[in-house]
Amino acid sequence: MVGYIAATLTTISFVPQVIQVVKTKDTSSISLGMYSLFVIGVALWLVYGLVIGDLPMIISNAITTVLSSVILSYKIRAVLAAKK
Amino acid sequence: MVGYIAATLTTISFVPQVIQVVKTKDTSSISLGMYSLFVIGVALWLVYGLVIGDLPMIISNAITTVLSSVILSYKIRAVLAAKK
Repeated sequence: MVGYIAATLTTISFVPQVIQVVKTKDTSSISLGMYSLFVIGVALWLVYGLVIGDLPMIISNAITTVLSSVILSYKIRAVLAAKK
Repeated sequence: MVGYIAATLTTISFVPQVIQVVKTKDTSSISLGMYSLFVIGVALWLVYGLVIGDLPMIISNAITTVLSSVILSYKIRAVLAAKK
């Protein structure tokens, strides 16, 4: 039960960050290193969930992978734009 | 095995973000909502790890709780300072 609440909170926590990044397009204080490692890490959690066949793990990590990828893509875009 | 790599990556991913926030003290594009939910969520993951007695879960979530709390505390300080 506490696991489900924990999974829900850590998953939905990325929603306000995605909204803020999409709205403001500001990623200046967001770390490229963090989201690079995080997206790979959470995608591996998804793989692990698929391997052991754990549905809550699959669902929460699939959602978190998508949300954190959006943040990472905005950050990469900003880094590339700054290099031009 | 993939679970251990995943846990390590998602845990250490917060290190570059903490370093960036501590160095620059800039948290403008970091979402207060995200870190509020995330810190509670990851602390509950820690509780869950303690309940089921899973050592890798306890270690990785304890570290992530500390790291994300540092980011949250800098964000809260910035929000309070902006209100003055």
